[in-house]
Amino acid sequence: MANYLQQFKLPDPFVFHRGGTISNAMLAYETWGALNDDQSNAILLLTGLSADSHAASHGPKDTAGWWEFMIGPGKAIDTNQWFVICASSLGSCKGSTGPCSPNPKTNQPYRFDFPDLTIEDIAHSTVLLCQSLGIQQLHTVIGPSMGGMTALALVLNHPGYTRHLIHLASGMASPPFSTAIRSLQREAILKDVNFNEGHYSADAWPEEGMKFARKIGMLSYRSAKEWDERFPRSLKKVPNQAFGTEFPVESYLEHHANQFIHKFDPISYLYLSRSMDWFNGNGYAKSGENPLKDKGLVSALVVGAHTDLLFPVHLQKELHALLLSSDSESELVIVDSIQGHDAFLVDKTTFTELVGRRLNQTMGSVCN
Amino acid sequence: MANYLQQFKLPDPFVFHRGGTISNAMLAYETWGALNDDQSNAILLLTGLSADSHAASHGPKDTAGWWEFMIGPGKAIDTNQWFVICASSLGSCKGSTGPCSPNPKTNQPYRFDFPDLTIEDIAHSTVLLCQSLGIQQLHTVIGPSMGGMTALALVLNHPGYTRHLIHLASGMASPPFSTAIRSLQREAILKDVNFNEGHYSADAWPEEGMKFARKIGMLSYRSAKEWDERFPRSLKKVPNQAFGTEFPVESYLEHHANQFIHKFDPISYLYLSRSMDWFNGNGYAKSGENPLKDKGLVSALVVGAHTDLLFPVHLQKELHALLLSSDSESELVIVDSIQGHDAFLVDKTTFTELVGRRLNQTMGSVCN
Repeated sequence: MANYLQQFKLPDPFVFHRGGTISNAMLAYETWGALNDDQSNAILLLTGLSADSHAASHGPKDTAGWWEFMIGPGKAIDTNQWFVICASSLGSCKGSTGPCSPNPKTNQPYRFDFPDLTIEDIAHSTVLLCQSLGIQQLHTVIGPSMGGMTALALVLNHPGYTRHLIHLASGMASPPFSTAIRSLQREAILKDVNFNEGHYSADAWPEEGMKFARKIGMLSYRSAKEWDERFPRSLKKVPNQAFGTEFPVESYLEHHANQFIHKFDPISYLYLSRSMDWFNGNGYAKSGENPLKDKGLVSALVVGAHTDLLFPVHLQKELHALLLSSDSESELVIVDSIQGHDAFLVDKTTFTELVGRRLNQTMGSVCN
Repeated sequence: MANYLQQFKLPDPFVFHRGGTISNAMLAYETWGALNDDQSNAILLLTGLSADSHAASHGPKDTAGWWEFMIGPGKAIDTNQWFVICASSLGSCKGSTGPCSPNPKTNQPYRFDFPDLTIEDIAHSTVLLCQSLGIQQLHTVIGPSMGGMTALALVLNHPGYTRHLIHLASGMASPPFSTAIRSLQREAILKDVNFNEGHYSADAWPEEGMKFARKIGMLSYRSAKEWDERFPRSLKKVPNQAFGTEFPVESYLEHHANQFIHKFDPISYLYLSRSMDWFNGNGYAKSGENPLKDKGLVSALVVGAHTDLLFPVHLQKELHALLLSSDSESELVIVDSIQGHDAFLVDKTTFTELVGRRLNQTMGSVCN
């Protein structure tokens, strides 16, 4: 994978939406396919909170990416047709600059001296990356989950920069229920004694906090219905201590949380998580006005899942209605996937069909 | 309230469903109304996890109970007609014997030496209480939430002891999603350094664990829809520290969790919480057979709410189907209340109408 990882140096200084600057900042990114002569076949893929730039493998010897089934030659996002760009989010510490990167002024990690990160900053930095690649206008922005918010921030702040939008499992703002879940995740990390106000180290990692945060998050990633099918009612094991792990769902949470602990930087997690709760696309217009009006969007596909607890379907319906009353076409699809918020990562058949069909429908505007 | 609090001494020893015994154990309980001559007007009310015996006031100078709007002269559960009994659950430390009660053998609290508590033990102890009051058969058992499970344990283990069942916001077993939430609540308490393997004290109380457990629980008590209406999207305040309380829903969780910290004993909470995850009414019959067959139940009212995350409506549908295919009448009502699991405590109009109507319908079997 490392062979394909590229770096884009952000302008110096990079100025944040809420104020504050950083120097020597960069984005780690990957691309698939080739940009055509008139740069009309570019797709920007914006990621969820914990994903990185490695959305798909670059060849048979490469490791699989997080959307491997979606992206590649002959796949729904056909890299024989499209030039696809995916960056690790600014602030994510998956190769891009974030709170655990060294502050050039001190040679120590920024930690809480990293400026307040917003979804708008993630959008802005990726627009700069695309422009550096010679792309005057994107054909399509695709954003699932946090990436859907980033896609909206791009449309709102960079009107006309994308013609089409594919918006999956996301919305114009986080509902209070989702903010509550993320708030408890942040609280679990912040109160871990090893977190130590951000001065943790590899030897004293806030493992318990990260683990608990992941478990809380997992309540919202799938659906109660999927868990009903996954876990039988019969008890699995006798715990070896009072109130030890006993129920199948407990083992499941424990296993997945343990896998996550060292995969993500704790402060990065806090910054990205909060940026989702801060984002409010509706705040871009006065009450009663349409924030998406005159943003140059030609068409949108908005997809939600009935079982999504984190971004429930009323958010996709709200976005679809805003798009319809703006100057954009819009198609709303609410899918029956039982995988909840994660459906876009798991329900391959449904999502490849939807994304593939939409790209084929809008391909007319590509000049090959 | 204390004037009306009565004590029932359990048989010595009291033998638990999963083994183990306790001595000198008692239940704290309250009653309303008068038992009629042939003991045919007795209603047993079984409580949710955190409620106590004080379901309603006993007069104008008494404090309000947790179901004040439901119980009293002229109310839906009309105490001019009915004799109502409500006990604090065995194990709950709201006056009844539980893990924080002194073990007569050591004069120290039982802590983890308290036997494994099951929903069946709570049901059994309340049946013994009712029998001690001279009640050969209950007219109706009413159980919301954990109380609904206790009511089912009563029907399954004490066939014929109640003629009617009113089952609210509960089910034959806990779905994995609810078990996961309760497991995380237990984990939050267990990992608090002040919990100290059960050897906490009033001076070193596991406040953080209890607070975090309550916050996690609150994710499941109401509904995302109710929170959408309760909390505006606009931000409320600037936090006074990095990642301090900022969003309205955070203040709400913080406020309610702080109120709960000292209202419940941590080990009692663990025991009662686990008993809900252990309960499996379906385990009373071989696969494919109906565990509720021949249990002597005449009729049941089963109520659920579309917005209940903890006991979703498929559980009430399952129970209703089991009742219909047993020898009982059953009516299923799924209400549109937006208050989620808490609807029975909050949606007064809907629940007083349902409970009142059902009691009036079945009153024919009372001999006044």
